[in-house]
Amino acid sequence: MGSQPATENLLYLGVDGGGTKCRAILVDQNNQVIGEGNGGPANPYHGVARALESIVNASDNALRSAGLKPEDKSRIVAGLGLAGVNVPSLYTIVKQWDHPYYAQYLTTDLHIACVAAHSQDDGAVIVSGTGSCGFAHVGNESLTLGAHGFPLGDIGSGAWMGLECIKAVLLDSDELGPKTAMTELVAEQLQARGIMIVERLSGAKSSDYAKMAPLVFTAAEQGDEIALKIVQEGAKYLTDVARRLWELNPPRMAMLGGVSQRIVDWMDKDIAEKMSKPLNQPEFGAVHYARSRFETELKAVAE
Amino acid sequence: MGSQPATENLLYLGVDGGGTKCRAILVDQNNQVIGEGNGGPANPYHGVARALESIVNASDNALRSAGLKPEDKSRIVAGLGLAGVNVPSLYTIVKQWDHPYYAQYLTTDLHIACVAAHSQDDGAVIVSGTGSCGFAHVGNESLTLGAHGFPLGDIGSGAWMGLECIKAVLLDSDELGPKTAMTELVAEQLQARGIMIVERLSGAKSSDYAKMAPLVFTAAEQGDEIALKIVQEGAKYLTDVARRLWELNPPRMAMLGGVSQRIVDWMDKDIAEKMSKPLNQPEFGAVHYARSRFETELKAVAE
Repeated sequence: MGSQPATENLLYLGVDGGGTKCRAILVDQNNQVIGEGNGGPANPYHGVARALESIVNASDNALRSAGLKPEDKSRIVAGLGLAGVNVPSLYTIVKQWDHPYYAQYLTTDLHIACVAAHSQDDGAVIVSGTGSCGFAHVGNESLTLGAHGFPLGDIGSGAWMGLECIKAVLLDSDELGPKTAMTELVAEQLQARGIMIVERLSGAKSSDYAKMAPLVFTAAEQGDEIALKIVQEGAKYLTDVARRLWELNPPRMAMLGGVSQRIVDWMDKDIAEKMSKPLNQPEFGAVHYARSRFETELKAVAE
Repeated sequence: MGSQPATENLLYLGVDGGGTKCRAILVDQNNQVIGEGNGGPANPYHGVARALESIVNASDNALRSAGLKPEDKSRIVAGLGLAGVNVPSLYTIVKQWDHPYYAQYLTTDLHIACVAAHSQDDGAVIVSGTGSCGFAHVGNESLTLGAHGFPLGDIGSGAWMGLECIKAVLLDSDELGPKTAMTELVAEQLQARGIMIVERLSGAKSSDYAKMAPLVFTAAEQGDEIALKIVQEGAKYLTDVARRLWELNPPRMAMLGGVSQRIVDWMDKDIAEKMSKPLNQPEFGAVHYARSRFETELKAVAE
């Protein structure tokens, strides 16, 4: 940590970095948003150099939108919440980066999403979007479940539902599995059947598979047994994740991600009813995280 | 088809083209092997230009090893058995290629493996190697089952077993799934546990997952319930594939691929006992296929 700017001149930057883009907000001492900026992909798992470049771009854009200059990065206390840094070696690389900020605090995208959802340090979140995972932070303890990525894990996520759907449709097409209503729904959505589905999905990313999640819900709601099995297996996994997270006694728990609003209806009732509404966007959690860590350190120095 | 070389000057080339390499043999009118050659990846699904280049390289190498020149390609009746051409658009592209041979006959790698395994046009094969699939050809009918690729299908293959193994081990590590003996076996093989497994498998190919199949068999043989479930599900799928193929009444059925010798012991007994030994390597099937198609066409012209 440097020593040039007086702490009253400091600004706080919150960065939410994911696989396709990163988003930054800049707030002043009074927690007022004075700038915003976007950058490219920022998951170091898919390239460290690219991720750091995206973060700097997003910072510069946020400074520019606040009428400040790139040099003002030296006045910034930055909170970075990045996908991929749950992998220890990547955490270390980004942590040791020769960053351009006054101070940098690094954690996972999951952690800042959790802080943001609850507007406080402690809480728990379950994400069911393209991927899935669970996270809780209580006191000095934190627990991450899942976050293994596609196709290794991510049960109950959109990508997982889409992949299970295609597997079932291909078995149906070979007459080696039960008939499923998803066959017609996939044929409509992809304009393809049987081996042509394989061609259509050549090079497909997890986000492409996630586009098929809605049709799995549709088929399940119509009583299709195979679709029901997929939705129920996904919902059971997320229920199990929630039960494990509640063991840590977080004050609140919220569900995040594009699939969460539909799958929560299939989860155990006692668990679904205890879910709270997420309060803020993840980048606000990154600001909160950086600020609270920074102020704790200042206090420790002063004592 | 050109008309320059007298048919007694013709040579037959058999090419077995897969995702990592292709292999060619050159035989004379008396079916004697006079040359052999290898080339690079030849699955047009991963790049048409690259596949065609690999095939030409393998042909040139085979001609050279027979003491002939690249120009002698115009004396060749070529049989190409390629992975990936079960996808209709890729079949059409390679079929319409401006090839350098006297004549070209194109089919799938699966078809020539089948012809080779039985030394005759008709038969059935089940492949369980890195991937899995079933194929039968009887009279004018043929049937392909599976061959959907990783991770969409390939149940009962090495890559599928490896992926299911890792999924189970990650659930065990999160205490969200049953304990399995595979956890220790994977820790030994990958020198990794929990989230470190995800790091170790970053960018892993289907062949990397297939390397974990042997430890699934080991755990299953020791009575591990999760490993048993994986092996039994794989074996049941391959049994179902075999039953569907027998419906076409092929004269023989054989199992091919690195996993087949272990998984056959877990398949239904009546099906396992009816498996025959494969007689020849796939490239011989490509020669047989090209020659029989060419001679049929010659006869048709003569009549």
